[in-house]
Amino acid sequence: MTAPTPSRRLASAGAEPVRVPVPLGERSYDILVGRGLIDEAGPRIAALGCRAAAIVSDTTVAALYAKRLSASLQATGVRTATIAVAPGELSKSYETLAQVCDGLLAARIERSDLVVALGGGVVGDLAGFAAAVVRRGVRFVQIPTTLLAQVDSSVGGKTGINSPHGKNLVGAFHQPSLVLADTALLDSLPLREMRAGYAEVVKYGLIDDPHFFEWCERHWRGVFAGGPERDEAVARSCRAKAAVVARDEREDGDRALLNLGHTFAHALERMTGYDPRRLVHGEAVAIGLCLAFRFSMRLGLCPGQDAGRVAGHLATVGLPTRLADVPGGAGSADALLDAMAQDKKVKDGALTFILARGIGQSFIARGVEADAVRAFLEEEILAQS
Amino acid sequence: MTAPTPSRRLASAGAEPVRVPVPLGERSYDILVGRGLIDEAGPRIAALGCRAAAIVSDTTVAALYAKRLSASLQATGVRTATIAVAPGELSKSYETLAQVCDGLLAARIERSDLVVALGGGVVGDLAGFAAAVVRRGVRFVQIPTTLLAQVDSSVGGKTGINSPHGKNLVGAFHQPSLVLADTALLDSLPLREMRAGYAEVVKYGLIDDPHFFEWCERHWRGVFAGGPERDEAVARSCRAKAAVVARDEREDGDRALLNLGHTFAHALERMTGYDPRRLVHGEAVAIGLCLAFRFSMRLGLCPGQDAGRVAGHLATVGLPTRLADVPGGAGSADALLDAMAQDKKVKDGALTFILARGIGQSFIARGVEADAVRAFLEEEILAQS
Repeated sequence: MTAPTPSRRLASAGAEPVRVPVPLGERSYDILVGRGLIDEAGPRIAALGCRAAAIVSDTTVAALYAKRLSASLQATGVRTATIAVAPGELSKSYETLAQVCDGLLAARIERSDLVVALGGGVVGDLAGFAAAVVRRGVRFVQIPTTLLAQVDSSVGGKTGINSPHGKNLVGAFHQPSLVLADTALLDSLPLREMRAGYAEVVKYGLIDDPHFFEWCERHWRGVFAGGPERDEAVARSCRAKAAVVARDEREDGDRALLNLGHTFAHALERMTGYDPRRLVHGEAVAIGLCLAFRFSMRLGLCPGQDAGRVAGHLATVGLPTRLADVPGGAGSADALLDAMAQDKKVKDGALTFILARGIGQSFIARGVEADAVRAFLEEEILAQS
Repeated sequence: MTAPTPSRRLASAGAEPVRVPVPLGERSYDILVGRGLIDEAGPRIAALGCRAAAIVSDTTVAALYAKRLSASLQATGVRTATIAVAPGELSKSYETLAQVCDGLLAARIERSDLVVALGGGVVGDLAGFAAAVVRRGVRFVQIPTTLLAQVDSSVGGKTGINSPHGKNLVGAFHQPSLVLADTALLDSLPLREMRAGYAEVVKYGLIDDPHFFEWCERHWRGVFAGGPERDEAVARSCRAKAAVVARDEREDGDRALLNLGHTFAHALERMTGYDPRRLVHGEAVAIGLCLAFRFSMRLGLCPGQDAGRVAGHLATVGLPTRLADVPGGAGSADALLDAMAQDKKVKDGALTFILARGIGQSFIARGVEADAVRAFLEEEILAQS
């Protein structure tokens, strides 16, 4: 896989990036997908109109890319400052938010200036929230540096931090003015993080696009290798999420479909103490997707063949697919159900799930009996022990 | 003034409150003005649809009114919780914001529930901001308990906290769903706070409504005494501010008119270290209004008679009107100019001011020479020494 990569890069270096519009009225913006976008960031960001741009990143990503980005911006006459926080989920805190806000003010970022979030989901959520509240809102640009961030958190405008009461409980809806998804940045991403992001790519096929799922089955190697398939996977994922978000910006209805696999996933993350050494979000999603399909199958909604294909594909790329795959164990059915109840509103013993009638045929199922979930989880645990 | 008050209260107790609509599209809401509204808060808030309401207040106001409000809400079947912070500007901090957000989450406030801000400007700004960010936004209701909060901070949707870099630099535009301005709550307000709020009432007349200024000159005693004139003053002020805000919700243009007197006022507050023992905001505004008119006069824009009437009326109600009235002194002209420069963008030695061609004829003046401001301030200081 090493030989073709350089020529591919050369071939696409001068190519126009793929443009994915996110149509949200006066909050509309574009996602650009392509290799090498970070080096074109200066003129693209300057075109939005600003005197200064503050780059918010984590220390790991900043060491890799902040200088290149800063140089590109300065070359267009935009003044820059860089604010780097500690990497990891712990930076989604009140304290780090205060640190970033004060850093933006110290950098004399005005209402007409810009915040540039350079990093993965944590940086995007944190920097986006800081941008939403500093001077009651300045514009921001996302340059997501992980596959997960490119296909998930860069679309939708959800920003925020964690509270001791739970994840993402404090934040704002703040749409970016531009997203630059530079797929070449993923070349240096650890394989495990690449796989984790890929689980969310597959999810878009499973929600409502069976052709995209088939495409994934055929082309996943190119996505991982960094060929034009990677750009296509990122662009199709963004387009899919944008379509859902455009229908339901404030998450009152349809947007819940994006939670396919996530009720199980959040419970698994809680059970493993959000410890990335045991389970990262995308791995939890991979298991969650498989559980959602097998649960749908058990309820007589979905053919077993489809549930098998989902698990088969995710296993092929190296993702976990079963509760038994959780290092250290996922806990009992009761414990998992309790963890779900904390996440979702449980009304009179019933939960809301995203279930599926087949690949690409997911739907919102309200009033799912907690007892049915428990029985399913018990079976899963039994079958795998 | 004691005898007529009870009968007035009886007369208006059963009366319908005055309704001031704030037309902001899908963010439109009503301000209700009248005596005794706090005891009708339950059904009015419950009508917005919610299972729970969290009352955010400061310990002083909570001790006076939280139980009455809570009882009124509970009588309609709304679950309540009360979160009380320390009184005073220091509560507009990152730390207190975190405390209020976590308090709302601990009280299990959901997206469909409500936050009720019960207090003055500090509580309104803090609670409104917490409501804007908890679960990425829950609705909130304002019950302002000072005249200043009733006529100023309850209209416009500006919420926020202070940063070490300056006041109100971190926050959100978050419109309330309802404002209940209970003018009977002002009966217990200290006279000094009543006067301070009154300076903002007068400001609305000075901006663009000379008839309202005349009305103030005639009826201010009733405003202070708590008669129907108080309701009228609050309602007219809210209507005036609502009209400006409706034209310019995000403060990009016309809304700057509301800053009449405030460039001087902010400089005075900065010079007195934001120490309320020396100067409270409304007192600074009173001096600022007089300075804005005298400066306009000095620039040949405004008749001296109008500047005299402004200062005359504010002095009549007991408000300060001159730099010399600042306890401990207001500092030199240069020091004041420096303090202004921190507040406003100074472009090439020029400032933006709100000036006036007469009472009710204010306008945005860009490019006011710093030298002209300095010379004016030097004259003021000289004339008063």
